[in-house]
Amino acid sequence: MSAPEEYMHEAIRLAAEGVARGDGGPFGALVVKDGEIVGRGWNRVVTDQDPTAHAEMVAIREATRRLGVWHLEGCELYTSCEPCPMCLSAAYWAHIGRIYYAASEADAAAIGFDDGAIREELARPSEARHLPRQQLLRQQALKVFAAWVQSPLKRPY
Amino acid sequence: MSAPEEYMHEAIRLAAEGVARGDGGPFGALVVKDGEIVGRGWNRVVTDQDPTAHAEMVAIREATRRLGVWHLEGCELYTSCEPCPMCLSAAYWAHIGRIYYAASEADAAAIGFDDGAIREELARPSEARHLPRQQLLRQQALKVFAAWVQSPLKRPY
Repeated sequence: MSAPEEYMHEAIRLAAEGVARGDGGPFGALVVKDGEIVGRGWNRVVTDQDPTAHAEMVAIREATRRLGVWHLEGCELYTSCEPCPMCLSAAYWAHIGRIYYAASEADAAAIGFDDGAIREELARPSEARHLPRQQLLRQQALKVFAAWVQSPLKRPY
Repeated sequence: MSAPEEYMHEAIRLAAEGVARGDGGPFGALVVKDGEIVGRGWNRVVTDQDPTAHAEMVAIREATRRLGVWHLEGCELYTSCEPCPMCLSAAYWAHIGRIYYAASEADAAAIGFDDGAIREELARPSEARHLPRQQLLRQQALKVFAAWVQSPLKRPY
């Protein structure tokens, strides 16, 4: 078990490694459970051609795969920068217990990563968002919901 | 080039396939570019033990990998249910141009998928959120930001 500062140093080291490789933005993250690092990641958006490959997502996915679970109760997320709304939402879906971060959202915006625009969009009522959206075939989708509710294979998460 | 309803039928069919396999929640999604389906996904949270493996994320990742890009300008996302905040944020990061959805967030909540709680958390000022958070070592992270800004390998996205 190390101090939070030691884990954060490691998250920042991963960010630097990603920068040295040219894999994407300057961000690194760790998942820690009971004092052990169970997931590591750095931003790989460019190398993986994957807009979802933020450091926190990579670290969360590695942790759940390694632990064989789809929730990370009792785990801490260390990230070298305040999570964007995608990563923060993923932390909620993963049931992360605490987040440590180093740089702030404003620091990221200052170098061109404008998470704030997404945050503002999400805060708007859905009909006021800029991304055009249209609803279709709701009843057909509800039939699949009903099939899931009845399914013996259902595993709520 | 098919009508939007035909693509949505396919997204709903993928949702049903995921339910039949027991892979996760009853959700399917497609990415369409110039009338061609370039990414498909259904929810695989349970099977992949991956809390980020929502249908839209799987479809976006397949589309960018297949097209060899990390943005999906001009693409449409078809999803059998209104995207959660994680998936909606990913759609913004991916530069998706339009979203079609079938079931609503309220429909998902009615069968136990409470995206609304995450949406409410994100809407709160960061200091008022329930997930505990703490800032550490900001200056060290900013050094890595500076290294990225100077890097010849930098590829803004």
